[in-house]
Amino acid sequence: MLRLGYFEAELKPRSPLGRNMSNISTKPPSGMRDFLPEELLKRRHVMDLVRRIYELYGFSPVETPSIENLTTLLGKYGEEGDQLLYRILHRRDALKRALEAEGTSESTLSALGLRYDLTVPLARVVAQYGDLPRYFKRYQIQPVWRADRPGRGRFREFYQCDVDITGTGSLLAEADVLSAVARVLQELGFNDFTIQLNHRDLLTSLISSAGIDPSLEETALVAVDKLDKIGEEGVSKELVNRGIAPAAAEKLLSLIIRKEEGSDEELGGELRASLNSEKSNQAIDDLLSLMKISAGGPAGKHLRLNPALARGLGYYTGPIFEITVDDLAGTLGGGGRYDGLVGMFGKQAIPAVGFSLGLERILLVMEERGMYPPLQAGPQMVLCSMGVPAEKVFNVAETLRSQGLSVEIYPDSAKLGKQLQYADGPGVRAPCAAIIGEDELAQGTITLKALESGAQETVPLAEVAARLGELLERPPAD
Amino acid sequence: MLRLGYFEAELKPRSPLGRNMSNISTKPPSGMRDFLPEELLKRRHVMDLVRRIYELYGFSPVETPSIENLTTLLGKYGEEGDQLLYRILHRRDALKRALEAEGTSESTLSALGLRYDLTVPLARVVAQYGDLPRYFKRYQIQPVWRADRPGRGRFREFYQCDVDITGTGSLLAEADVLSAVARVLQELGFNDFTIQLNHRDLLTSLISSAGIDPSLEETALVAVDKLDKIGEEGVSKELVNRGIAPAAAEKLLSLIIRKEEGSDEELGGELRASLNSEKSNQAIDDLLSLMKISAGGPAGKHLRLNPALARGLGYYTGPIFEITVDDLAGTLGGGGRYDGLVGMFGKQAIPAVGFSLGLERILLVMEERGMYPPLQAGPQMVLCSMGVPAEKVFNVAETLRSQGLSVEIYPDSAKLGKQLQYADGPGVRAPCAAIIGEDELAQGTITLKALESGAQETVPLAEVAARLGELLERPPAD
Repeated sequence: MLRLGYFEAELKPRSPLGRNMSNISTKPPSGMRDFLPEELLKRRHVMDLVRRIYELYGFSPVETPSIENLTTLLGKYGEEGDQLLYRILHRRDALKRALEAEGTSESTLSALGLRYDLTVPLARVVAQYGDLPRYFKRYQIQPVWRADRPGRGRFREFYQCDVDITGTGSLLAEADVLSAVARVLQELGFNDFTIQLNHRDLLTSLISSAGIDPSLEETALVAVDKLDKIGEEGVSKELVNRGIAPAAAEKLLSLIIRKEEGSDEELGGELRASLNSEKSNQAIDDLLSLMKISAGGPAGKHLRLNPALARGLGYYTGPIFEITVDDLAGTLGGGGRYDGLVGMFGKQAIPAVGFSLGLERILLVMEERGMYPPLQAGPQMVLCSMGVPAEKVFNVAETLRSQGLSVEIYPDSAKLGKQLQYADGPGVRAPCAAIIGEDELAQGTITLKALESGAQETVPLAEVAARLGELLERPPAD
Repeated sequence: MLRLGYFEAELKPRSPLGRNMSNISTKPPSGMRDFLPEELLKRRHVMDLVRRIYELYGFSPVETPSIENLTTLLGKYGEEGDQLLYRILHRRDALKRALEAEGTSESTLSALGLRYDLTVPLARVVAQYGDLPRYFKRYQIQPVWRADRPGRGRFREFYQCDVDITGTGSLLAEADVLSAVARVLQELGFNDFTIQLNHRDLLTSLISSAGIDPSLEETALVAVDKLDKIGEEGVSKELVNRGIAPAAAEKLLSLIIRKEEGSDEELGGELRASLNSEKSNQAIDDLLSLMKISAGGPAGKHLRLNPALARGLGYYTGPIFEITVDDLAGTLGGGGRYDGLVGMFGKQAIPAVGFSLGLERILLVMEERGMYPPLQAGPQMVLCSMGVPAEKVFNVAETLRSQGLSVEIYPDSAKLGKQLQYADGPGVRAPCAAIIGEDELAQGTITLKALESGAQETVPLAEVAARLGELLERPPAD
């Protein structure tokens, strides 16, 4: 390893001055973000609450690697998903071989990719570890990467917060997953969200009942999934463009778009009457049972049947869900039952259901609605000193920290005014300054100054933690 | 996005049985790891403690993206580092252009790479954001990626826990950083670690004093850095192989290898006498001052001058540190002053000092020494039911959760014995089962069973949280 010796030629250690050494961009790459303390604190606030609620519902944490084999990832997210995967370039000999062989391409140049969601890695984990409990209730809060076009609330690296239950087909699993995410939103302060509910089998029956050939089911779903974005007319056009007869397209839309009147029960009855197949009846029964089970929990009053809900991802096999709020295009999260995914990896198919909360969307809406409580990013106090040797200043800081106080030391010599200005300045905004001079040092005391009110008091060093609260609450003396 | 319709042809929803559908490997890629709840809990235990102590020392959290521009990363970690970077393969048009152009290579196929450490991204952040506080005390706990050969405690994705202070050349910054990491280790239960201390300027003087030409300083440092791994004789051979005269190699080794007798003060005095240059005197003064400042804190008794400490990374300019324990080859972490790195990105050079704790090494030693406290991964109770409708079971679970209890619902119909076995079984190991039957439901009660002692009691549903502790502590009735 080489030492970059030219640093020293240009800059003496301890000198904060220098000259422009390069033109390297210091921005993060497109779609990527740096999180400075204030913003990160908001993210932490939400993530900590998600974690707490998920654990309350009996979910245990799991983490999987950022890098997965492409064989794990490819073919799970549809064609578009495959194209949005970040691939890792081969290195050394593998790269050399790929470049020397004929037909060099994406697939010969890479065998690893970045995690695209948290569901496929979970399915791999469940297939891999034979000693997991029969019912594996796991949650996972980690970033995923998609080479998508960046936009409002859409990034190339973003966090998902997933809960899943594997090993059971019981609707109690659906109810648990939906209640957990609804409780998260409720405790964050959301009360106006809707949990849209549908069933893949119901969609299949609706498509078939509209007179659309089963071979066109996939393509019809892709079009229907865009209803929120392009509207009824747009979906109608797209269905026709995809080879579906105009009459069938109209019929499908009339079947799936819910009229505002009528309860979920009544809608269920109507769908039962118009579809009347074993499969559709079972799907409707399941959805109404799920609503009945969930009624007594936090999801209850937010659930709403929506036969037009399609969900983009291909792996769902039963009930599907999406959470929306009125002031956000797109969703706060989605999920559903995917009884086939684990079986794609393992010897045994294992039923599963899950929900993925989109952290970035939640943060976006919370920011716009001003939903955060006050959060303190910096230290509780900045230790300012006048004419005291460094080791004494350091010892005072250690004494304060031993009392559980979070303390930053002002490290350089400066006038007291400048030190206080720093403590109260942007990016620090400490509630309090602790000032140590020769007198305080001699007497074993310290002078505390509440930076908002200006209230000030000299107290014994051993009593700072005990007396800080009162000082900070004291009204300005004026 | 396409729907993977063939799932349904092979597997009915709700059926947990199926057949082997693929031979895709379900292991994580080489050097990568899945963390199941029990192991993740240990990681969390350490990370939460690191976070708490770093905040106690006045550091605020920052996170940077996993993907950085290669222009940011290349040339910062030495040649070997550059080779260990994970690169992201270009996509679509950029890939097409790279493949069609002549001289296709690593550098034409990629412009992005994965984060290699947390120091270079910090330097980029400090250069980028003009509104950071003058003294930026940040900590960062995130994974980094290196395409290194996997080994004991060495992975390709691993976490670092960094603290850094930018904007000051004061030795109080060095003292703060060292005290924070020493406090972390102390509170984790380590008491036998050594903080090795050296100074880049002292190394320069030692190399020059041994009669080695300044042009060979880099190469000499690379050899000296291997002292722990290959021993004195190995380093001597390597120095000679790298073009250094045998006599100079011997002299260098005799200068840097510390004899066991004598205090740090005495060693400082000897070095001062034998080197006697302004630069070396200043370096020795700094190291002894740093030890004096730190003496009253948690780092104090662990500090030890080691003139042979070299640190691999090229960007250090002042004091350098490494933490070692006797039963681990390699280090628990390292750091130092790097006054030139920020200036490589920005208009202004900004002094900085930091330390990086290696999470994986700490976990490895804690595991081997059995240093973890008991940690409970699963839910506090599994709710078992007999002949009660699903919505009633769910309501009971919600009532318990409202009391702050972490509850898993046994989701399927099964004999009570099987349900209890699950609750007490591997991967769940709940301390308690809560049993609801028709009687309990009618009376608004629930039967609690402590799974270790077998103690059992039927209590009002509203009082479970209040009475659980007593039940769990009750000795077996025998």
